Amino acid sequence: MSASFSFRLLATDGSARRGEVSMPRGTVRTPTFMPVGTGGTVKALYMDQVRGTGADIILGNTYHLMLRPGAERVARLGGLHSFSTWQRPILTDSGGFQVMSLSALRKVTERGVTFSSHIDGSRHEMSPERSIEIQGLLGSDIQMQLDECVALPAETAEIERAMEMSLRWAERCRTAFGDQPGKAMFGIVQGGDVESLRLRSAQALAAMDLKGYAVGGLAVGEPQETMLAMLDATCPALPAEKPRYLMGVGTPDDILKSVARGIDMFDCVMPTRAGRHGLAYTRRGKVNLKNARHADDPRPLDEESNCPAARDYSRAYLHHLVKSGEALGGMLLSWNNIAYYQSLMQDIRDAIEAGSFAERAQAISEGWTRGDIAPV
Amino acid sequence: MSASFSFRLLATDGSARRGEVSMPRGTVRTPTFMPVGTGGTVKALYMDQVRGTGADIILGNTYHLMLRPGAERVARLGGLHSFSTWQRPILTDSGGFQVMSLSALRKVTERGVTFSSHIDGSRHEMSPERSIEIQGLLGSDIQMQLDECVALPAETAEIERAMEMSLRWAERCRTAFGDQPGKAMFGIVQGGDVESLRLRSAQALAAMDLKGYAVGGLAVGEPQETMLAMLDATCPALPAEKPRYLMGVGTPDDILKSVARGIDMFDCVMPTRAGRHGLAYTRRGKVNLKNARHADDPRPLDEESNCPAARDYSRAYLHHLVKSGEALGGMLLSWNNIAYYQSLMQDIRDAIEAGSFAERAQAISEGWTRGDIAPV
Repeated sequence: MSASFSFRLLATDGSARRGEVSMPRGTVRTPTFMPVGTGGTVKALYMDQVRGTGADIILGNTYHLMLRPGAERVARLGGLHSFSTWQRPILTDSGGFQVMSLSALRKVTERGVTFSSHIDGSRHEMSPERSIEIQGLLGSDIQMQLDECVALPAETAEIERAMEMSLRWAERCRTAFGDQPGKAMFGIVQGGDVESLRLRSAQALAAMDLKGYAVGGLAVGEPQETMLAMLDATCPALPAEKPRYLMGVGTPDDILKSVARGIDMFDCVMPTRAGRHGLAYTRRGKVNLKNARHADDPRPLDEESNCPAARDYSRAYLHHLVKSGEALGGMLLSWNNIAYYQSLMQDIRDAIEAGSFAERAQAISEGWTRGDIAPV
Repeated sequence: MSASFSFRLLATDGSARRGEVSMPRGTVRTPTFMPVGTGGTVKALYMDQVRGTGADIILGNTYHLMLRPGAERVARLGGLHSFSTWQRPILTDSGGFQVMSLSALRKVTERGVTFSSHIDGSRHEMSPERSIEIQGLLGSDIQMQLDECVALPAETAEIERAMEMSLRWAERCRTAFGDQPGKAMFGIVQGGDVESLRLRSAQALAAMDLKGYAVGGLAVGEPQETMLAMLDATCPALPAEKPRYLMGVGTPDDILKSVARGIDMFDCVMPTRAGRHGLAYTRRGKVNLKNARHADDPRPLDEESNCPAARDYSRAYLHHLVKSGEALGGMLLSWNNIAYYQSLMQDIRDAIEAGSFAERAQAISEGWTRGDIAPV
């Protein structure tokens, strides 16, 4: 912990980085995975379970929270930490991505975005300044600039226009954020799948000397190799002494390959969403608990896991819960999945410290490929 | 705990009884409330939470479990305790009530019941002997006789016919159950809303010298006073040295008034079902968290509760979770409700021991009537 926001690089191994992001509410060990707490709750988990898996920081969605329960209300109630009972660091996105993906009747101008709520159709305006204001009302420790994320594939001219406007919005967000020593505002690299635009965006943001940098607009349906190529184009242009966050990513494999390219922070709804749909992430790959092969299997998901969800319940029971639509099924599998992601991050951190990241990544990947234990 | 099934009466206060039901898997302090674990899970709760609220025993539904995952499968997996991870006593119903309320194309004959599953339409037969066999496969500690429960209102002749057949089924279940020292098979008093039939049923069952007695076919829509009148007719005819279980009951007020009439055991889906629908049971009555009055309320449901769900989350947060359809809302309110029911039972047990049950029941009831704290 520290009174001011800071990043410390503890070790590197190739391009992979082991570091620490410190701020008044706690220290985040990087590479880190941030469970997504969209509406002030990491779906189907208690916050002490989330912490127990090893999570140092969670993500809150500005778009969801501004619509319900409302940013001013959360502020009156003491902020998102107190509201959600998560007292450690929280990163909030800017709301821009969800405006694009969830809302209706949206209109983007230089000034900002206007849109209709997907909940009740009410009209809202969000400028770069309002996004930062909302994130401040929520009490977020790491705030994101408002950006415009274009859906791929798109024309280069359109990608460039959105990227350039996102740079201007980054400046406005920086001004709106001002000087808050214990908190940070990150800029977001855009540029679609065009390497030269990614580079231009990264360089322009680097020149702004922000406290951290995100890579946005990826993992939106493009092939993994495109995403990785964009990281190859972007990361070297970002200052080494600042944390780097790849937004909305991803599968365990995406994470391994992005860490190898110098990414420090990740978030994704995948582990909790998959958990609600009967899918478990394990060191042996993805396991579908809906599959009848588990119906008579007395073995746990993973007897070596530290997570009770993976260790203390039979596959037969998990299968039964999932097939019966019982809440406990989603609760246990979401817990298992967040725990698996966190154990993966711990594994990655240990390997970077030991200077054996490439070998460890290879071994982890082989574990997924070998697949699940044979049926009983 | 004890190697054989036994009941000990520790204190009485008027007709209210304080006792202990002991069996190899644990001791049940009575009066007791059994959370309902329909399909091997108390909905939206972890078993350690259930135990943490003070529950000594849970209920499993034979009908649900025989259809999914299947009794033979549960037996192969080591029984319901191991399957569900609840290692303390389990009571199972006979399946009869759910056959009547949930299944289709059911046909009742002297031999038993045939019906179609509400899940997949498959045909099943359940005789008194098969019900006991299934409950044995599940590994249930307290098993219930198969009975026929007629919906009220009904003709007296029909109520009598079903009651008399239930008595014959009780004999057949007793024979099928045989001699199992560590376990018990309870008979079920039937007789609808006809006092004389209730009395006849109770007397006939008492003569069978079973290990415990249930009162069934109540809390099926009749006025509370009818239910209480049936208890007044029934309880005095049941042997004092055996536990008495009022099936499927009920509201906190039903429980208070039934304890006053000599009932020792209760079960009901109400606390968990209400929890999933945004309703909280508290010492100040029922609180509807959907109500907008809670939207800005930073106070917990009940700051004096021992349950984290009642104490550590604001009403504003609970309101937000419920309005947003977040799983955590149902998880927290189900937890609160089971905890409230268990604290009520502890309160009742303490009062009977202290010889102040009537006064305490009055005070508890007044707390409900005074209602919730004023809005902020």
